[in-house]
Amino acid sequence: MAYELFYWPGIQGRGEFVRLVLEEAGEDYADVARGPGGVDAMMAALKEGPTPAFAPPFLRAGGMTIGQTAAILMFLGERHGLAPQDTAGRLWTHQLQLTVADLVAEAHDTHHPLGAGLYYEDQKEEARRRAAQFTAERIPKFLNYFGHVLGEQDFLLGAQLTYADLSLFQVLEGLDYAFPNALVRTLAEHPNLAAFRQRIATRPRLAAYLSSPRRLPFNEEGIFRRYPELDT
Amino acid sequence: MAYELFYWPGIQGRGEFVRLVLEEAGEDYADVARGPGGVDAMMAALKEGPTPAFAPPFLRAGGMTIGQTAAILMFLGERHGLAPQDTAGRLWTHQLQLTVADLVAEAHDTHHPLGAGLYYEDQKEEARRRAAQFTAERIPKFLNYFGHVLGEQDFLLGAQLTYADLSLFQVLEGLDYAFPNALVRTLAEHPNLAAFRQRIATRPRLAAYLSSPRRLPFNEEGIFRRYPELDT
Repeated sequence: MAYELFYWPGIQGRGEFVRLVLEEAGEDYADVARGPGGVDAMMAALKEGPTPAFAPPFLRAGGMTIGQTAAILMFLGERHGLAPQDTAGRLWTHQLQLTVADLVAEAHDTHHPLGAGLYYEDQKEEARRRAAQFTAERIPKFLNYFGHVLGEQDFLLGAQLTYADLSLFQVLEGLDYAFPNALVRTLAEHPNLAAFRQRIATRPRLAAYLSSPRRLPFNEEGIFRRYPELDT
Repeated sequence: MAYELFYWPGIQGRGEFVRLVLEEAGEDYADVARGPGGVDAMMAALKEGPTPAFAPPFLRAGGMTIGQTAAILMFLGERHGLAPQDTAGRLWTHQLQLTVADLVAEAHDTHHPLGAGLYYEDQKEEARRRAAQFTAERIPKFLNYFGHVLGEQDFLLGAQLTYADLSLFQVLEGLDYAFPNALVRTLAEHPNLAAFRQRIATRPRLAAYLSSPRRLPFNEEGIFRRYPELDT
């Protein structure tokens, strides 16, 4: 099946979690808003159909429109061998994904603690205070958790790669871009997570994707932003 | 099956979304941290087993431990007739639930924009700025979306009640507690949502639950807090 992914064209953002699954699965997809129709095509599609998404990203697959990153990943992962088939395994994968999503949301809020309706420049001092907690307490707490779950296994569930692994990888990449000092400190206590990150990055399909022009660079419009003043 | 729910004893919080599903389904459950073992029993259980949760709420069901509110609801809803059985319907329900969860997270952040590690009293001015955006822009945007999805139907999916309806109901209750002025303004434009709220509240099992001592009152320790200075 050819998929249509709808997401903002200039950033990795939440769309990147979907891209990583599609790339690892080797599935064909159109990144619609990066194509000729641009954002207008995306905004038109956002309102269409009986299951409209609240916001990008959303995915068209056959007759379905699926919004919300974690729901898209559950659908794609279970369909393309990136999730277990049994109930307990499916729920565990999804639980891990939703915990990654909580970390993503907190990473975003470091630069927009007063809300996305104001510019970063209008909330820099507040961002500094929020980021100080994030780097000192929240990154360690989340990565302690994932490091504990990973243990000595290759992937979070054990031998089987799942969509939650790809999402955790993406968060580690993002934290390395936005908070390199904080990440180095935390990963020093979790060599298994550092090895995990390398294990994912060198998978043939992902490595090809990450070095392709399809992989947008991180930048200061996305979720993970490099503001050195926030990485203490 | 008798379920064990683990959540902080003094607040509705995210545990309440689970309680509403269990109550509507008429399922027996133990609210463990409100029982004799208290929070200690919960914190001990949090670390146990092969699928530990990052944080409460989590649910024990037979041999499984399931964390993350939306994953718990998906499991319970699909098992007890509060979700469709087909893939498209299951994904649509979950998409709606995750959008409700985004609104819940934003409601929480109104009183803790600088992070949960500081007291409200230490971030009152920042809370005022964040809440101003929330009441002016975010509540209307989310409720416009849900009002559009609901349309003239009884429930979000149409004739069938799902766990996403119960969660939307809980958010409307919470917003009415925390931001009554803002909610009245927004619901005036969405009489279908006001009717929906009443439709859920008067379901026999839910009405019995809501008037029972099992339903904790809203308070200023939970997600939805009544700070009149934030409800402009």
